[in-house]
Amino acid sequence: MNGAVEFPLDLAELSFRAAGESLVRRSVLPSGVRIVSEHVPGSRSLTIGYWVAVGSRDEEPGHFGSTHFLEHLLFKGTAKRTALDIAIAFDSVGGEHNAMTAKEYTCYYAKVQDRDLPMAVEVLTDMLTSSLLDPVEFENERGVILEELAMADDDPSDVANERFFEAVMGEHPLGRPIGGSPDTIRAATHAAVQDHYRANYRPQDLVVTVAGAVDHDVLVAGVTRALTMAGWDLSEYAAPVGRRSGSPATISPGARLTIVPRPLEQANLLMGFPGLLATDDRRVTMSVLNSIFGGGMSSRLFQEMRERRGLAYSVYSFAPGYSDAGLFGMYAGCTPAKTGQVAELMLSELHRLAEHGVTADEMKRASGQLSGASALALEDSDTRMSRLGRSEITLGEFVDLDEALRRLALVTAADVQALAAGLAAGPMSIAAVGALQPDAFAAILPDTICS
Amino acid sequence: MNGAVEFPLDLAELSFRAAGESLVRRSVLPSGVRIVSEHVPGSRSLTIGYWVAVGSRDEEPGHFGSTHFLEHLLFKGTAKRTALDIAIAFDSVGGEHNAMTAKEYTCYYAKVQDRDLPMAVEVLTDMLTSSLLDPVEFENERGVILEELAMADDDPSDVANERFFEAVMGEHPLGRPIGGSPDTIRAATHAAVQDHYRANYRPQDLVVTVAGAVDHDVLVAGVTRALTMAGWDLSEYAAPVGRRSGSPATISPGARLTIVPRPLEQANLLMGFPGLLATDDRRVTMSVLNSIFGGGMSSRLFQEMRERRGLAYSVYSFAPGYSDAGLFGMYAGCTPAKTGQVAELMLSELHRLAEHGVTADEMKRASGQLSGASALALEDSDTRMSRLGRSEITLGEFVDLDEALRRLALVTAADVQALAAGLAAGPMSIAAVGALQPDAFAAILPDTICS
Repeated sequence: MNGAVEFPLDLAELSFRAAGESLVRRSVLPSGVRIVSEHVPGSRSLTIGYWVAVGSRDEEPGHFGSTHFLEHLLFKGTAKRTALDIAIAFDSVGGEHNAMTAKEYTCYYAKVQDRDLPMAVEVLTDMLTSSLLDPVEFENERGVILEELAMADDDPSDVANERFFEAVMGEHPLGRPIGGSPDTIRAATHAAVQDHYRANYRPQDLVVTVAGAVDHDVLVAGVTRALTMAGWDLSEYAAPVGRRSGSPATISPGARLTIVPRPLEQANLLMGFPGLLATDDRRVTMSVLNSIFGGGMSSRLFQEMRERRGLAYSVYSFAPGYSDAGLFGMYAGCTPAKTGQVAELMLSELHRLAEHGVTADEMKRASGQLSGASALALEDSDTRMSRLGRSEITLGEFVDLDEALRRLALVTAADVQALAAGLAAGPMSIAAVGALQPDAFAAILPDTICS
Repeated sequence: MNGAVEFPLDLAELSFRAAGESLVRRSVLPSGVRIVSEHVPGSRSLTIGYWVAVGSRDEEPGHFGSTHFLEHLLFKGTAKRTALDIAIAFDSVGGEHNAMTAKEYTCYYAKVQDRDLPMAVEVLTDMLTSSLLDPVEFENERGVILEELAMADDDPSDVANERFFEAVMGEHPLGRPIGGSPDTIRAATHAAVQDHYRANYRPQDLVVTVAGAVDHDVLVAGVTRALTMAGWDLSEYAAPVGRRSGSPATISPGARLTIVPRPLEQANLLMGFPGLLATDDRRVTMSVLNSIFGGGMSSRLFQEMRERRGLAYSVYSFAPGYSDAGLFGMYAGCTPAKTGQVAELMLSELHRLAEHGVTADEMKRASGQLSGASALALEDSDTRMSRLGRSEITLGEFVDLDEALRRLALVTAADVQALAAGLAAGPMSIAAVGALQPDAFAAILPDTICS
């Protein structure tokens, strides 16, 4: 093939060869379970992920943090396996094994050698289907999660990031921290987490993706057997859970300026604007913009803020996208007394991009960077496994490297400038953590609010 | 081969096939430049590193932090390339490009696709040989480094780690922070950094290692040409700089207890003992011990502190080794009020290991974990590139996977217990950052000091 392949929810079987000679196969079982694999020739290992498309944004008031709480509990034991058994299964073969809770999905994954795929399928299936959610373990894990939140609270860039999402997204559910807050975790009830488990870990929710040394037929047989042994009735028909709407939500940003005063050496500064949806056609333009603006050592932000002015060690831009919203942000860690100046300079760099555009050299360089980095990234089976999950859960299509490069080649300097102008015209939010004066941003905030 | 291959400093050419069918070749040029490559069949990319065996431990009083300062400056431009040119070279092909300063070496590295090897050789050679060390850039970079140190100072686990090394190593140069301190960086002079450059970046210091899609002859020709074009006289004979002594230094630990008071949610606790040299025959025993004690989710520390008691989110042990000293440490992030209890529990776990040893199951699991993880790690060319550098600079021998597994199989439960007993009998040091009472460790410190 050479292009994008759609992943229709009502198509039982799909198979195609992607760029780079990998073989992608996808099965939608009658029960709604989806299994997607990418066989990479010559590979000796694989990464496997079990996904459900539920994340922190789906939580109801009173249950913030319950998705992440549940993720923790799934490691705590099943009817067949204690927490130690689960840990031993992966540790004893030297595998990596973890999970992540995001705003729109939860993923349990493992990286193992090819011979260990049957074990990974069996243990991950057991965890996902048959968690005990033992009440004693529940209380124990509450303590662990409170420590995890405390650790994040002691990390000023984490704090700035959470306040920044709140600022840009306002009351939209994407604005909330993924893990909840100490208050919501202290208040979490066993029943609520159990409800969450029952409601969101059904056959029609489950997506299994594997990349690397994998045979699709063996994988499907193994997953089916393991799910059946866990008591799931796979003969009962269910349509896979549909993808989220790709229509932009109405976002009313929160506070224009959030300062979290802390007695620190550095200020952690984030400023930015509403951005693009994950499914926006301009995502590839955003990649180019981000590469040129703040994506590497040759980017404008790095060159201006670090190389020429020595104002920051870490400085970059980023542009996460979700089903109905996105954001564009700029980060710098800098001396507290210079934070206003740094904010002004970063903003003026964005305005320069919006007003004067980018050079042909920059376009060429960004194209080289994105294509080269993609090729290198695809050497890791975890990148490929995640691409499959993203294709199934978020995009509804699989985009191989050739197609990604074709789309990249179509982006023009004018596209990048137009996108920059659109971003810069949005409502700006600032979140900063550090020993800052309340008037640190006086020079830029009034103008921006008026723009 | 099946075994370890020595890397004698006076041997011009060496070539052998390592386990897993990779081909290792090593050339020692008459000028003392060493070039080591590992060709991995089927690979499409590579990682390349330029090493010099000088690190923070080699700095003289008054110049602490100069190794790291110099590492930064090498990115700032040569006679042929500006800082932007250097950044563009790697960014425009999507490569990764960075450097690290360690206690006993400095390494500049890049990961690129196979076609980009000539560029990587040219740019890295230019950086290493022909840095301008421009005085204006020097002042700019001083600001960047001060920001880097400020960032580290705002990270409580970084702070705890630096205080912990000082505590265990005392006045030994390995005890010093790699980056120096804000005071030494403010006091750093251009002349001192320039002296450091001239003294330590000579042909006999340079080690180039490459793993992945690399042809050794092409590599040697490319490096030789680039060094010659940079004005290095490779015809002049020089013996490669010898490896550091592998004899244990006499260590007088520093403060038994260091508490850095900070108004944080968590305490960052590190406690530990002098450990093993990098070249100690018992390093493989240490790997087994660390795997069982605090190396993964099935380890004793993780199970006891997190799974059973819910006292910590992050908890582990670690055992870095250097040429003449090493250490063994245990880390936990926990609630400040429970820090004394956590310290007590971790210490009692170590004593339990020392007194009662490990089970056959644990031995088997550790062996599986270490061999599986090694196999997975060798899929990344950066792991292989680092192994070559370590073989050349630290060990003086190359140990392939088969030989590593053979050595692993020889480790007995009695070895592990004896090592644990040896560690636990050493002088214990504690470093903690957080909102702690001065008497937080009253219960364990007096006993430990007497033991």
